Amino acid sequence: MFESAELNQKLSKEEYAKQEPVLREALLKAQYALLAKPDFPVILLVSGVDGGGKSETANLLHEWMDPRHIKAVAFGEPSDEERERPGMWRYWRALPPKGRIGILFGSWYSDPIAERVDGRCGDEEFLHRIEEIRHFERMLVAEGALILKLWFHLSRDAQKKRIADLRADKRTRWQVTQRDLDHLKTYNRFRKVAETLLRETGTAEAPWTLIEGADERYRSVTAAGSLLDALNARLKHPAPPATPAPAPLPKHVAQGRNVINTLDYSLKLEDREYKEKLAELQGRLAVATRKKKFGKRSLILVFEGQDAAGKGSTIRRITAALDARKYSVIPIAAPSEEERAQPYLWRFWRQLPRRGRVTFFDRSWYGRVLVERVEGFAQVADWMRAYHEINQFESQLVDAGAIVLKFWLAISKEEQLARFKAREDSAFKSFKITDEDWRNRKKWAKYEEAVCDMVERTSTAHAPWHLIPGNDKQHARIEVLRNVCEALEEKL
Amino acid sequence: MFESAELNQKLSKEEYAKQEPVLREALLKAQYALLAKPDFPVILLVSGVDGGGKSETANLLHEWMDPRHIKAVAFGEPSDEERERPGMWRYWRALPPKGRIGILFGSWYSDPIAERVDGRCGDEEFLHRIEEIRHFERMLVAEGALILKLWFHLSRDAQKKRIADLRADKRTRWQVTQRDLDHLKTYNRFRKVAETLLRETGTAEAPWTLIEGADERYRSVTAAGSLLDALNARLKHPAPPATPAPAPLPKHVAQGRNVINTLDYSLKLEDREYKEKLAELQGRLAVATRKKKFGKRSLILVFEGQDAAGKGSTIRRITAALDARKYSVIPIAAPSEEERAQPYLWRFWRQLPRRGRVTFFDRSWYGRVLVERVEGFAQVADWMRAYHEINQFESQLVDAGAIVLKFWLAISKEEQLARFKAREDSAFKSFKITDEDWRNRKKWAKYEEAVCDMVERTSTAHAPWHLIPGNDKQHARIEVLRNVCEALEEKL
Repeated sequence: MFESAELNQKLSKEEYAKQEPVLREALLKAQYALLAKPDFPVILLVSGVDGGGKSETANLLHEWMDPRHIKAVAFGEPSDEERERPGMWRYWRALPPKGRIGILFGSWYSDPIAERVDGRCGDEEFLHRIEEIRHFERMLVAEGALILKLWFHLSRDAQKKRIADLRADKRTRWQVTQRDLDHLKTYNRFRKVAETLLRETGTAEAPWTLIEGADERYRSVTAAGSLLDALNARLKHPAPPATPAPAPLPKHVAQGRNVINTLDYSLKLEDREYKEKLAELQGRLAVATRKKKFGKRSLILVFEGQDAAGKGSTIRRITAALDARKYSVIPIAAPSEEERAQPYLWRFWRQLPRRGRVTFFDRSWYGRVLVERVEGFAQVADWMRAYHEINQFESQLVDAGAIVLKFWLAISKEEQLARFKAREDSAFKSFKITDEDWRNRKKWAKYEEAVCDMVERTSTAHAPWHLIPGNDKQHARIEVLRNVCEALEEKL
Repeated sequence: MFESAELNQKLSKEEYAKQEPVLREALLKAQYALLAKPDFPVILLVSGVDGGGKSETANLLHEWMDPRHIKAVAFGEPSDEERERPGMWRYWRALPPKGRIGILFGSWYSDPIAERVDGRCGDEEFLHRIEEIRHFERMLVAEGALILKLWFHLSRDAQKKRIADLRADKRTRWQVTQRDLDHLKTYNRFRKVAETLLRETGTAEAPWTLIEGADERYRSVTAAGSLLDALNARLKHPAPPATPAPAPLPKHVAQGRNVINTLDYSLKLEDREYKEKLAELQGRLAVATRKKKFGKRSLILVFEGQDAAGKGSTIRRITAALDARKYSVIPIAAPSEEERAQPYLWRFWRQLPRRGRVTFFDRSWYGRVLVERVEGFAQVADWMRAYHEINQFESQLVDAGAIVLKFWLAISKEEQLARFKAREDSAFKSFKITDEDWRNRKKWAKYEEAVCDMVERTSTAHAPWHLIPGNDKQHARIEVLRNVCEALEEKL
């Protein structure tokens, strides 16, 4: 696999002098074309062996293009903030928005390689991480990103020669560190691990580009040229990458009954019982979240439901039992400009709680398969792939120690009508009812279908959906609280 | 996840009587539309719990449609033939061609579930197999297949009731086997395993359809309706599923040197040395392939190279040392009609050797990224995904015990010209040279680029490419033989 980067490629001074100005001008032009029509982000991954010219190439690109619109990120030891969230969190933070070029050093490839080489990561774990990377990159490409993966390679001999040359000169001797020498010793193992990684992650949507790193002029022109080719090809064919046309979701012929319309909407709780239970459950919740063990976990509560189903008031009954410094409530409405320039899950990744914290999502990533599906904001292929992406996302949360609970607050169509009317008639509640609510109501059946598909495809053992009939608010609140308490008590 | 298939769905006799004739007519019509324009195969996977109605549904579909164009396959214990090849071989064999409907019972899902439930398959192995399935299905969809995955579900209570009902009646008591009772005991574990499997393999391109299996009428109408919906949707939108538009392969700016043009074409072997070495190597090869250990392995030799590079004559020097009952040479030309109706790798899967055997591919699956790429027979997205698919394919071969060696026989452009002319001038060799050879020669540079990309992306530790300069035929033959002997001697 590395044969083609061990050919002793060289570029003469004269040839370089001829190519450099042409390349620079073309790159700058492409960069500005991207800025003018920011349809996609460019994610440039820079990986490879020590001394292969990784940082030099990044410096060069900064010099050759407009550095204000390039963001380079290197990943060292994870910070506290990063350690307390799923492993991919730091990379989500570093993604460039549409229109920009992000240069990611090492990126999500560094840790798997390093840990595999030094034996911290076993065979199976390695394969699992490769798989995670493939999913992540596939999602990025499906969301429109242009991913360019450069691998800078040096043969063992070239590596040896580089170190010997640096040591031979007093002025450069300091550049050779113990780390370089250690890495030279493990070169063969590194090469083998890298080969597996490159083979397994060299997909059609995000292939690797091997670059022989020994000759600076050759390397610079090849790396910059690869970026230019990729950018221009994408600018010329701006069609967003299409995901495979999905098989249709079956219409469940003859399906009168479904998980929503078979809920028991008559369930009720009288005032006295409600108050007693509320006090008891809030007490249990307060105790659970103050346990020492909770400091190693986090709690993510997702609330979805029809308009006027009582999401907000239910959330308030839970927060009442929590330390205000430890939770946040994230209301999800239309995405901001910054959020629209990123993959749809990005806005949720940025809100993930640290350990020992609680985050409430008042509406959530499920918008993708609910409102975006029903209103046609997302293509069929896009919301179809979302089920799997969301399951993967929640798996990452759970693997990182989060407790994830999802609530669908369900009310009957008649109850919604009554609540809408009550809102319109109330001076202090009328702000809560808009034309949009009435429009949504007309699509009741389509929403119900979307909810059923969502529950079928995303209610998992590690992140189950709780379907709560909410015609009686008191009953719904107690049910939600009870589920939260039981989950916490079971897991702590 | 199974909530939506535990709703106690029922269909009345009257309703069924109303729907049945409509469905049957529509299904038959769809089946004939597919036959008339056989653009894609329909792969219907039938899985789920015992007694969920799997075989009843298959019988029903045979009854309702034209059974001559439906093929149902059930997978029991693997045969000798099957055990001696990679695990997926039996499923490749069972794939329906374009225009037909294949009903696969259990399919590639049965073994992973069964082995996970009874503990033969560990966590990591289970995830690995899930991943293999995802790759396989993604490839099938990218190749145009319509995959419909039906999961027939019964709740534990429904399962219990079914068994009790059968036992209560003298006439049906015999239907309850010990296996049914055992499975009832492990129901909860089975359900958990199935949930993971369904979640992880419910992708956008091949989602699962859950069907509640307790009521026969409901189940029949839902299953047949799902097939009808899927078929009609696909017939209506016949556009083949598009794979993501790939990032372009970089043009390797300034790359004068490559793995092909830097080979040493001057290498030569004189007659005497050639004869000596040939005899020695053929002897070693004969010994190696007669070893007992070879009976547990197989050998797959892939030959590619420019026209007139000497593939055939090299192969003959190897077969000369082999037992004629133990090898076969597969010349690969344009695919047959039957082969064109299947995914491109199908024609190679069907030729895989059993244990203790040798298969020579005179040209191979690499045609996808060579001739099909250069001549435009395959779309960019299709040959781009082929690198990864081929690596996965070869991994499966190696995992199953095959030794895979790949040879690129390289000749210089001048040498090819000389050989072409010699062929034209020879009475008994002129059949070997056609207009197509001359046409291919004009695309020398494009083929060279394709070869370099191929080597970079598919030369792996477990299935390396050997690039053999072949201007001197004697040198080339000895090099190939030596590589084969060394690989065998190392691995046996």
